[in-house]
Amino acid sequence: MKYSLGRRAKLTCCGEQVEMTMRTESIMGNLEPALHTVTLVFSQCHPNVDLDLLPDPAGEEPTNRFLQALVQILLTHVNSTFDRTSKVLDFHHPHQLKEGLEGFSLELPDRPENLEQLLVDCRDTLKYGVKTGHPRFFNQLSSGLDIIGMAGEWLTSAANTNIFTFEISPVFILMEEVLLKKLREKVGWPPVEGDGVFCPGGSMSNLYSILLARYSYFPEVKMHGMAVIPRLALFTSEHVIPDILVAELPQTDRLPGRLCKCSHYSIRKAAGVLGIGIENVFLCVKLTPQTLLCSSQGLVPFYINATAGTTVYGAFDPLNEIAEICERHGLWMHVDAAWGGGLLMSRKHAGKLQGIERASSVTWNPHKMMGVPLQCSVILMRQKGLLQDCNQLCAEYLFQPDKHYDVAYDTGDKSIQCGRHVDVFKLWLMWKAKGSEGFGSQVNQCLENADYLFNKLENRADFELVFKNKPEHSNVCFWYIPHSLRKMSRGLEWNKKLHEVAPKIKTKMMEEGMVMVGYQPLGEKPNFFRCVFSNPATTREDVDFLVDEITRLGQDL
Amino acid sequence: MKYSLGRRAKLTCCGEQVEMTMRTESIMGNLEPALHTVTLVFSQCHPNVDLDLLPDPAGEEPTNRFLQALVQILLTHVNSTFDRTSKVLDFHHPHQLKEGLEGFSLELPDRPENLEQLLVDCRDTLKYGVKTGHPRFFNQLSSGLDIIGMAGEWLTSAANTNIFTFEISPVFILMEEVLLKKLREKVGWPPVEGDGVFCPGGSMSNLYSILLARYSYFPEVKMHGMAVIPRLALFTSEHVIPDILVAELPQTDRLPGRLCKCSHYSIRKAAGVLGIGIENVFLCVKLTPQTLLCSSQGLVPFYINATAGTTVYGAFDPLNEIAEICERHGLWMHVDAAWGGGLLMSRKHAGKLQGIERASSVTWNPHKMMGVPLQCSVILMRQKGLLQDCNQLCAEYLFQPDKHYDVAYDTGDKSIQCGRHVDVFKLWLMWKAKGSEGFGSQVNQCLENADYLFNKLENRADFELVFKNKPEHSNVCFWYIPHSLRKMSRGLEWNKKLHEVAPKIKTKMMEEGMVMVGYQPLGEKPNFFRCVFSNPATTREDVDFLVDEITRLGQDL
Repeated sequence: MKYSLGRRAKLTCCGEQVEMTMRTESIMGNLEPALHTVTLVFSQCHPNVDLDLLPDPAGEEPTNRFLQALVQILLTHVNSTFDRTSKVLDFHHPHQLKEGLEGFSLELPDRPENLEQLLVDCRDTLKYGVKTGHPRFFNQLSSGLDIIGMAGEWLTSAANTNIFTFEISPVFILMEEVLLKKLREKVGWPPVEGDGVFCPGGSMSNLYSILLARYSYFPEVKMHGMAVIPRLALFTSEHVIPDILVAELPQTDRLPGRLCKCSHYSIRKAAGVLGIGIENVFLCVKLTPQTLLCSSQGLVPFYINATAGTTVYGAFDPLNEIAEICERHGLWMHVDAAWGGGLLMSRKHAGKLQGIERASSVTWNPHKMMGVPLQCSVILMRQKGLLQDCNQLCAEYLFQPDKHYDVAYDTGDKSIQCGRHVDVFKLWLMWKAKGSEGFGSQVNQCLENADYLFNKLENRADFELVFKNKPEHSNVCFWYIPHSLRKMSRGLEWNKKLHEVAPKIKTKMMEEGMVMVGYQPLGEKPNFFRCVFSNPATTREDVDFLVDEITRLGQDL
Repeated sequence: MKYSLGRRAKLTCCGEQVEMTMRTESIMGNLEPALHTVTLVFSQCHPNVDLDLLPDPAGEEPTNRFLQALVQILLTHVNSTFDRTSKVLDFHHPHQLKEGLEGFSLELPDRPENLEQLLVDCRDTLKYGVKTGHPRFFNQLSSGLDIIGMAGEWLTSAANTNIFTFEISPVFILMEEVLLKKLREKVGWPPVEGDGVFCPGGSMSNLYSILLARYSYFPEVKMHGMAVIPRLALFTSEHVIPDILVAELPQTDRLPGRLCKCSHYSIRKAAGVLGIGIENVFLCVKLTPQTLLCSSQGLVPFYINATAGTTVYGAFDPLNEIAEICERHGLWMHVDAAWGGGLLMSRKHAGKLQGIERASSVTWNPHKMMGVPLQCSVILMRQKGLLQDCNQLCAEYLFQPDKHYDVAYDTGDKSIQCGRHVDVFKLWLMWKAKGSEGFGSQVNQCLENADYLFNKLENRADFELVFKNKPEHSNVCFWYIPHSLRKMSRGLEWNKKLHEVAPKIKTKMMEEGMVMVGYQPLGEKPNFFRCVFSNPATTREDVDFLVDEITRLGQDL
């Protein structure tokens, strides 16, 4: 349906008839003329829009029309997100955006601006942003724009409540319960037991896991603090490529903190926050000797984080082996499956997480591999009641025990955040829309794209894979080797030059804006590209496009 | 514009013409027939909706129509939220909702459900929820449904990005900077200095403040943990009504943790999480002797939380007095202005926070008094750089230093969450719509409603105010005294009976669903109602309605 210029209609606005050049049907059509007309009507009648919207007694019509105009802008954005001829981003430097591009001012006024300006601001905000749902956005673990998920977020904000008590969030509290149970089932735990809570991101979920583990071994820490418990050591494994890192490890000394640079960021951050100290996070290669070493130095090991799907390589730890170590030494086993958890939805790939059912806690971010809009992360626990015991303070002024309904559903005291944003509805609605099976197919498709890219690069002289093995997850790590380097003999100088290649290509890529992929160094390895697939919109043609673009942008390097 | 039954149109759906009984104009009209027709069209052609939406190559039209149908449901909800003849809630017990009401099933399927069912699920989710934006919802500090704020959330979810690096959030990162500067300006700090970050709720913001304070005095804690620093003590003041609590305090002993039950929940939670221990949170009445007491027992005081706007009473601590104590003893002064911060937007009421400019950190939740949709909370810091120093780990695999833009804008390493939900845009857009002045008027109006209620109850025999002084914030605390109690002599028995009045009235109130107000006990005081005003939709007539309803529901008690 297209906008028919010249068709006129009369619209009553503030009790007066206003002539519109737009039929209402055109709301389904092009943005610009529709937007122009709607805002024209508004700017004639509503110099101070905000006060004319609801709750103003005459606010219903202006509110509906304003939101319809906004939805037009959003639909245009959504449609162009999936349009391959449209850019992924329209890059500008921070100072350019701050100076105000084409009238787009970030500064905040004392006096209200009118509706027309607000809609233009909305359009500009999207224009200068990054289309993370674009089929050629390969930059982050979270990508894609799931329509049902977005619809879920729209409803969540219209409901505008806090998942704190059953009293103010009856439906969402129950949805959280249903989802937690379903996710625990996928982990492989008996679904009736167990616990969990949706968290603001995977780092917080991991923090919860350490907090819970510490409380489980040393419940006195809650009341009396770290001063009354032994010094703790915890172990993690992110990015562990045993053959590299074992060589780096001093075998006889206690591992200095700096060696933990490869362990996941969030485990170290949490150790800092919780008062355990970053240096007490150890790599968990050669675990048993280290465990003993810690004990002999007065550190008490209590927790191992195994990673199911590392951020850069997409690697999976051998969960059963780690589970055995944990069981033997009485340690808490946490699995950070923020990225890898999605694979549990696929019959084909769930086996990569074998052993996860032996964990005491699991982090899983549906906003990554399952494509749920940001944020949606969960910490799951095998043991029921621990989360409540660890965090509750029973403040009667927040949680009244004498309510007329079953107050076991007032879950706010389980969390450290007290009130929480409702992150469950979008996932619940997507699950209804796709079914478990739909999530499974989506995951399979992403991993097929990774396979396709891996196979393609394997046979190219101008690319080199960081690992020769097939990717376990959807991460494919590779270098582009420009002409000038292909003839050079390898060594320090070569590495140094190669290190500069990815940033140079990335710069051009962002300036042109047709595709986005991330890069980073890791350990001794110079900067390499990491391509990840989590967007169901991506096809093989998009993978081809990425490879062609890198080749084109890097040809003169 | 109303739905015109009988008007027919032809719509192309999946290449076939489908007859519709609805004109597109009717999207602006009644929900039910429009919803019915749209979903009818869909269910004929799209048994598996999700796969037909974008990114399906033919997904643009179905996507637009699906979202339009969803928006109809949301608009109906928005309009009924402000309709006083519509209920605030349609109460059902947890077991009723779980059993499935009129086909509303919370259970998650293996196979996809169709669009029709999804839209019905959306409608039911809203139907069985609570209208927190209703003018007669007085239950929480966060209330209201700001249209512009909700529009901001819709855009945020369409943008679906993470406020992590400038690379993927260029506009939002800059908006956060602008907002932080503006809020610091309102606190009264030199705007060019200082720092801050938007957090997932006020409890997290308060946790940040303690984390920062601890790091500021003992930076070694980050690397080595609590074992290498002294045992810490911190002070807080929530709900302190000196004449009651001073009496409760044992003057010679170290204060046991249980006496802290009146201090704010989030400070105690954070002390537990950070490894300081809940028992080391002290009430800050008679501060100086306690401070000395702590020192003599090997506890080092380092932090005072002053509250600007307590949760129940809406009381303000004497910030200048506390600032003097902090300056004298070299303590970190934090102001929890989660609830009271909004008053800084009002010329009339900002003076209640005098002395806040002497704080080292401030928590401020725009999702409370400023009516921003949930969540929107900020921790502000006077000192620049501390947040970064305290939290950064410089993981190169997340934050590449060799990017082509100014990487000072990659702010993810300042936070403990790593990636964060974008909570800034809705506040930014509302600020554009209202201007600072608009927020000011909104705050004034809420406090005028509180005044009106206070004055009204002052002259009633069937109500009793918990405090005789005019409310400082918009909290009004009161008992309803039923007939049977008015004649009884006061004492333990009277208190016991009074304690049961509020829960009984609240039960009936929720079952009837026309109004909602909270109650709680506090200290020795039996259950009392706490009415709070943060919704600009509320008028004096709504206040009258609340009082009449309580009288009606309580008349036979």
